[in-house]
Amino acid sequence: MNDTILEKLRWRYATKQFDPTRKISDADWSTLEEALILTPSSYGLQPWKFLVIKNQELKESLVPASYKQQQVADCSHLLVFAVNKNMTEAEIDKLIHTTSAIRGQDPSSMDYFRSLMIGDIVTGSRGEDSVGWAKLQSYIALGNFMTCAAMMDIDCCPMEGFVPKMYDESLNLAEKGLTTAVVCPAGYRIADDKYADLPKVRYSREDLIETIE
Amino acid sequence: MNDTILEKLRWRYATKQFDPTRKISDADWSTLEEALILTPSSYGLQPWKFLVIKNQELKESLVPASYKQQQVADCSHLLVFAVNKNMTEAEIDKLIHTTSAIRGQDPSSMDYFRSLMIGDIVTGSRGEDSVGWAKLQSYIALGNFMTCAAMMDIDCCPMEGFVPKMYDESLNLAEKGLTTAVVCPAGYRIADDKYADLPKVRYSREDLIETIE
Repeated sequence: MNDTILEKLRWRYATKQFDPTRKISDADWSTLEEALILTPSSYGLQPWKFLVIKNQELKESLVPASYKQQQVADCSHLLVFAVNKNMTEAEIDKLIHTTSAIRGQDPSSMDYFRSLMIGDIVTGSRGEDSVGWAKLQSYIALGNFMTCAAMMDIDCCPMEGFVPKMYDESLNLAEKGLTTAVVCPAGYRIADDKYADLPKVRYSREDLIETIE
Repeated sequence: MNDTILEKLRWRYATKQFDPTRKISDADWSTLEEALILTPSSYGLQPWKFLVIKNQELKESLVPASYKQQQVADCSHLLVFAVNKNMTEAEIDKLIHTTSAIRGQDPSSMDYFRSLMIGDIVTGSRGEDSVGWAKLQSYIALGNFMTCAAMMDIDCCPMEGFVPKMYDESLNLAEKGLTTAVVCPAGYRIADDKYADLPKVRYSREDLIETIE
């Protein structure tokens, strides 16, 4: 497994040109969706919604909102990570109720946990910027997604270069209390994307890692 | 591969009790370090340093800084994701020079790219909160790390519940221009951690995913 992980992580790159004729199979995409759902988040609060855009017209209409990056149109599946704009007691209660339903626990047995979450994410210090906190969580999902995709020989291109307001409007996110955190077109590279063969640029292990024995 | 990915992601959980007698092998840890180094980041800027704490006294001393979470002491390797407190032109130039050295490109051929990054991350809108931007990147690394660890049957417990100032002081991060973004003890669960067998709590696919065909 170790060699496979490193081989796949070296194989992946921020794909510059997708082959617009190649589509991710339903079976593979279903696995990636399940992997997204399984992403860990702070307190398990899952403050996100994953939008999967396969519609060609909509993908093309989002190119101007993506600083003309053509990957948004040429990819197989355009994945949009949206997050909650606000965290209220309702979101905390949703987790409490879902937990009690799945685990057969009395909701009141989680009162302490409920207060802890509210005092942190809703009314506490992190509640002051809960959308910032939610975006952090969505980047865990992004990291998980990119690694899983690479393991499955699927290409993607993480993107911060887009206009959130335009995405939010196109996808009617505001009315759902959501905003776009990050975007990741997925699909398959064209055979001759010259960026695929460029040596990866990473700082040295000495630069990036400090071990304290 | 698809089944393996889902099986491992279902197997993982935020480990509550590590077996303090079990250590991650050097070979496995080396793979995880390489996976961390290979993490993608915005522009490839790698605004991070990964601290790997194996020293038992230091791990124990960080328990109070972690709201008494004992995993910090009992884990095999305590991984601390630190990020740059500021992004300056020096960081941009470091990437330009590393790229030119690795790819044999003339640095001046990247002048446009250099200006683009400075106008965004240093003097632009994201430069106003470059530490927030850097933390987002570190969560990609966290997501990548947790998925790779699970694939290798290694346990971990992502933690936001710690006092960054205390971590920064203990690890002398301020003087290096770094601050702690997130923490992740890694190792092996004890055989009878009751949290390991609790059903995972995730919202439904309908709740979390919206497909636009």
